[in-house]
Amino acid sequence: VALGPGKADLLAGIRDAGSIAAAGRQMGMSYQRAHDLVAALNADFREPLVATAMGGTGGGGARLTPLGEEVLRAYRDAEAAAETAVADRLAWLRSALARRD
Amino acid sequence: VALGPGKADLLAGIRDAGSIAAAGRQMGMSYQRAHDLVAALNADFREPLVATAMGGTGGGGARLTPLGEEVLRAYRDAEAAAETAVADRLAWLRSALARRD
Repeated sequence: VALGPGKADLLAGIRDAGSIAAAGRQMGMSYQRAHDLVAALNADFREPLVATAMGGTGGGGARLTPLGEEVLRAYRDAEAAAETAVADRLAWLRSALARRD
Repeated sequence: VALGPGKADLLAGIRDAGSIAAAGRQMGMSYQRAHDLVAALNADFREPLVATAMGGTGGGGARLTPLGEEVLRAYRDAEAAAETAVADRLAWLRSALARRD
């Protein structure tokens, strides 16, 4: 799967934290795992979604590319649209659940 | 989770096959697993979603109750609404994927 909730959250974390390691850490993910996911994202899309800067103590950080920003926005918009679209039926389904007193 | 893709498919299978065992088998599920899921569904909603008939050789089969039919319809409608709602952005996301030649 090219993109799902976990990868979207990781992209958002990188945008906010400016670092792959820090974004992964906030999600309880190992450094290796976070880097592997970013490598997969960058390979799956026609241009990288995350750009990393070399060098300096502790590395140069990471940021979303313009395509990365656009992909994250499209994903969040799709999530919001899906939630709106199912809201009525979800409310009905909840109303059909047994009450837990 | 009260209801998800697996349980919805199981409900649809029971409706079509008239049997919990047969519906589970079609999904590669053990008899025990299918029965456990149905028991959970019946307990989670305010009325049973699946009714089983006693007796006869091979048991009396199973069918969806009116609430079961209604719940399955609401779930399928929600799935369809979500798909429609995300279609444009999903198409754009797909267009942003790397080509695999």
